[in-house]
Amino acid sequence: MKRFKVTFQPANEKMYVPEGTTIKDALTAAGLDFDFPCGGRGKCGKCRVRVLNGAGLPTSAERKHLEEKEIEQGNRLACMTKIHGDLTVQLPFKKRPEAKILQIAPEKDVQLRPRIRKVYAEAEPPSLDDQRPDWERLKASAGLDGLRAPLPLLRKLPQLARETKYHLTLVLEKEEVLGLEKFDTRDKMLGMAFDIGTTTVVGYLMDLRTGKDLNVASMLNPQAAYGADVISRITFISQEEAGLEKLHGSILAAVNELIGQAAEKAGVAREDIYALTVAGNTCMHHLFLGINPRNLALCPYTPATKEPLALNGRELGIEINEAGRIYTLPNIAGFVGADTVAVILATDLDRSSDIKLAVDIGTNGEIVLGNSERLLACSAAAGPAFEGAQIYCGMRGAEGAIDHVRFGEELEFSVIGEGKPKGICGSGLIDAVAGLLEQGIIDKRGKIRSPHEIGSLKGKFENNIVQHEGANAFLLVDESQTAHGRPILITQRDIRELQLAKGAIATGIQVLMEKQGIETAEITEVLLAGAFGNYLNPRSACAIGLLPPALVEKVKGVGNAAGTGAKAALLSLGEYQRAALISESVEYVELSAYPAFNSLFASSLTFPEPLIPEPSS
Amino acid sequence: MKRFKVTFQPANEKMYVPEGTTIKDALTAAGLDFDFPCGGRGKCGKCRVRVLNGAGLPTSAERKHLEEKEIEQGNRLACMTKIHGDLTVQLPFKKRPEAKILQIAPEKDVQLRPRIRKVYAEAEPPSLDDQRPDWERLKASAGLDGLRAPLPLLRKLPQLARETKYHLTLVLEKEEVLGLEKFDTRDKMLGMAFDIGTTTVVGYLMDLRTGKDLNVASMLNPQAAYGADVISRITFISQEEAGLEKLHGSILAAVNELIGQAAEKAGVAREDIYALTVAGNTCMHHLFLGINPRNLALCPYTPATKEPLALNGRELGIEINEAGRIYTLPNIAGFVGADTVAVILATDLDRSSDIKLAVDIGTNGEIVLGNSERLLACSAAAGPAFEGAQIYCGMRGAEGAIDHVRFGEELEFSVIGEGKPKGICGSGLIDAVAGLLEQGIIDKRGKIRSPHEIGSLKGKFENNIVQHEGANAFLLVDESQTAHGRPILITQRDIRELQLAKGAIATGIQVLMEKQGIETAEITEVLLAGAFGNYLNPRSACAIGLLPPALVEKVKGVGNAAGTGAKAALLSLGEYQRAALISESVEYVELSAYPAFNSLFASSLTFPEPLIPEPSS
Repeated sequence: MKRFKVTFQPANEKMYVPEGTTIKDALTAAGLDFDFPCGGRGKCGKCRVRVLNGAGLPTSAERKHLEEKEIEQGNRLACMTKIHGDLTVQLPFKKRPEAKILQIAPEKDVQLRPRIRKVYAEAEPPSLDDQRPDWERLKASAGLDGLRAPLPLLRKLPQLARETKYHLTLVLEKEEVLGLEKFDTRDKMLGMAFDIGTTTVVGYLMDLRTGKDLNVASMLNPQAAYGADVISRITFISQEEAGLEKLHGSILAAVNELIGQAAEKAGVAREDIYALTVAGNTCMHHLFLGINPRNLALCPYTPATKEPLALNGRELGIEINEAGRIYTLPNIAGFVGADTVAVILATDLDRSSDIKLAVDIGTNGEIVLGNSERLLACSAAAGPAFEGAQIYCGMRGAEGAIDHVRFGEELEFSVIGEGKPKGICGSGLIDAVAGLLEQGIIDKRGKIRSPHEIGSLKGKFENNIVQHEGANAFLLVDESQTAHGRPILITQRDIRELQLAKGAIATGIQVLMEKQGIETAEITEVLLAGAFGNYLNPRSACAIGLLPPALVEKVKGVGNAAGTGAKAALLSLGEYQRAALISESVEYVELSAYPAFNSLFASSLTFPEPLIPEPSS
Repeated sequence: MKRFKVTFQPANEKMYVPEGTTIKDALTAAGLDFDFPCGGRGKCGKCRVRVLNGAGLPTSAERKHLEEKEIEQGNRLACMTKIHGDLTVQLPFKKRPEAKILQIAPEKDVQLRPRIRKVYAEAEPPSLDDQRPDWERLKASAGLDGLRAPLPLLRKLPQLARETKYHLTLVLEKEEVLGLEKFDTRDKMLGMAFDIGTTTVVGYLMDLRTGKDLNVASMLNPQAAYGADVISRITFISQEEAGLEKLHGSILAAVNELIGQAAEKAGVAREDIYALTVAGNTCMHHLFLGINPRNLALCPYTPATKEPLALNGRELGIEINEAGRIYTLPNIAGFVGADTVAVILATDLDRSSDIKLAVDIGTNGEIVLGNSERLLACSAAAGPAFEGAQIYCGMRGAEGAIDHVRFGEELEFSVIGEGKPKGICGSGLIDAVAGLLEQGIIDKRGKIRSPHEIGSLKGKFENNIVQHEGANAFLLVDESQTAHGRPILITQRDIRELQLAKGAIATGIQVLMEKQGIETAEITEVLLAGAFGNYLNPRSACAIGLLPPALVEKVKGVGNAAGTGAKAALLSLGEYQRAALISESVEYVELSAYPAFNSLFASSLTFPEPLIPEPSS
């Protein structure tokens, strides 16, 4: 779907929206929320705006409300006008008061306007002259006459009202009453943004009144006990009785544990937490909600839903304030989930005029390419090599892992935790292979050469070429220097695994470029999201062809962008609503259905020509 | 609050509403529901009507939408125009298609339009060309794009969709999705209307598609085990640990039991029941919902709420379809509950131009007096005498109870179940005392005369005057004719109890007449609601002064009007909405705060002059 730029005047606010979005929805997603008296049905004619360039033909609803001359001048109804090109829109009506703007990441600002709010009320106690019931009395004094109370609140209201002489705080979401609290509790309103990864779960504790970060807590996803990756967890569910309940229960327990940790470290109570936003891949999303993800593993990989959901925390099993709400971010497709929506939200990819590439590398690599006009996304099945699995001396990026390697005068490497190495993790492996390519020890097809095959100039490390299981291998660290007294090798098989992994990602990028009809040079920035992206040396990634070598100077880590997106949605109603627009407008590309996939994949297995060497520092 | 008549043309539909009601709300309550594009906020100007007589001054919102000339012609906005007098309103806009009209009681018609509806959808299964998620696929094919699905539905959707090839039925309430069912189940949609009395619980099973009665089930309210009346049950709650839970649990169990009985007798499944309406007094309402009714027993007798509530059946603990909803009718005050709202609904008292009196006699007698212009209600604490309690030979209206007594040539009586009598119930006692008054055996002050005090003409039953505990008593049935071999007596104390009970009701009626500023003769009809009202001989009730003797020819039983009202609200959205209007507009009169109450009560204890004798048939 094409995306267009809408500029709202006089605010000069810019918004990029998928083709066919109404001006009304664009206003909302831009955080410029106005009243639409008839709810956007073209009935009231009150949302008149003036399109300064390229207003299309008016609808019949617009003809009813606008005179011919007004139409000629570009006047239209915001709710009826769909966007089919870049527009500048003049707003004649008044917007709501400006909310505070916060910077939540180096390049990410959000409007502070959470979905939850509190209203404090003081009502007169009843008397024979005024026998109104407790609830009617309370809501009248809060100025909220139209509200209906949920039963659990009505059950506790009589007692609370008498304990406090009707000094009570209502917790609201839109026009819905969520909670009732004794006295004035408006100063307590916290929230947490969660990024539920297949491997790691992170929760950011924030103050919803100020937007401030209070704390962060993270842990390995305990579902790993039932399978390292998405597919093996789905297999577990299919084979094990109550498998879904186990996986669902274990992620709930993890989230509850992290809530407790973060609250404790920040010195606050978990009952002060009123909202959670949750981003994760589609499988993590389904498992968090207790929806069976089985169909995600079966062609055509259909999720149960991709919509954003708003849920009662306690009903789901999340231990926060009893009024607390859980907001899951929307998904895009079976293998491009809410975490990718959050990455787009965090990087404002949907508002960018320049074409950018965002890559979140893991067992599945989610790739997004495009700009405000059109965003394409796909998921590349990289397999576990980047996570250190199925690599002879591979391990996760944990203590003892070699995470960076440099072929200088000597072989240099760094170890996580700074002790003796135990193995090598994904970023270390990529560095090592990039170096071996540069040294000519590995050829373009990935073969580890024998010493006699290596040219004279590059012979420095030829003694490290050893035999392993009947093939050449590269000795990275000999047994005297490792923690366990065994050598750390890179085997021929390891190279093959890495070729498959990087080939999958490279093919995904290639397919999206072809679908967009663009050349590599048109990409202005490559955003590496996620923990792996943070560790990864961009030069090495380009050197092995994981990322296009021509873009080596344009690669930038954006940290845990999924977490940043979840934080944005937590703090800002407008960002949360924009997430829904992103979910609807990003075009998912199914790689397995792409005709040239196999040939592209086969040719992406080879390594590129060596990069121009990095200037030595 | 005053009530006015609004006549809608060209439909000639009449509606009586409290002063200050908008024309919009009157339209809705009259079942004439139109679209109000802006939701009735005076923003869109689309709900223009013409007030044919007595349009007041226009609001500023109306001035914005209407020209001076239009305003002069009586044009107004239905949403902005409040009713301050009788109006005739010409409707220029099209109403929705007419719903079927049903007669659910001799004088009660309702429009068949339940709150629950079903939509059947057939979606295409997903493919690589169309990977939309299950929910988005389903709702698009149902034409319900804006709907959000609740989590429990999303959890079962993937399985159900695949089992049925996406042939599914959605259960909806307004724009909310309640349920999801396999294949086309539109032919299954039942409901039950419940009247939860302090003594008896009745449930009417109905088909919501046709409006037909399917069955009825009733039982004694099992809460009686914890106290015969409302006050003793509240006392139980205050004194007993988990008292509220016990009372709440026992009424839920009773309702579930009756649902099972009615369904079994009708040969249907309880899962086919999607809606319950519930009417009961305010205490029964609170106990059914699990709200502590303690404050109802403490001055100023404050309920937790009087609003109508819509609840998920399973969450409350009601065993019907998992999508099923429970709709409680609204209350009026602490001692005038949803059952009285249901009586008003059933008797259309709020739409009557004539002044009528409705009385529902029990331990508390609810009394409503007025017409469409103004309805007043009060609750009179009659005590348990009418239920046979605290009467020497008193008993409930069950098998073996003397329910009617006639002083002819001989003393005649009828017995429930037609066996030998075991005691006397309320209606029998009232007949007996009425007869004793006519015979001159009781004097105006309630004293049972000794044989020598009775004049010559009335000596027929003087041999039945016996001594009991040092006072005169009347032997109704001697020991040879009773089931248990003990005589059935009416004691002096019984007469005193009855005087207190009938005096309370009579005082309530008197206070309401004084508040309305009307004379007895202005009352055109006395409607006796409830089971007791059905058994009661109106002549006897007037003879003892329970009801005004002058109205003896105007008394009419209306059966279980509370049940009829609950049925009306079950079948018809308009009636349910009218219940809310009734709850808001009926003026509650607190008898204990009425200045002349004590003197009126004292004078109401005496018996009236004997009625002109009933012509013998």
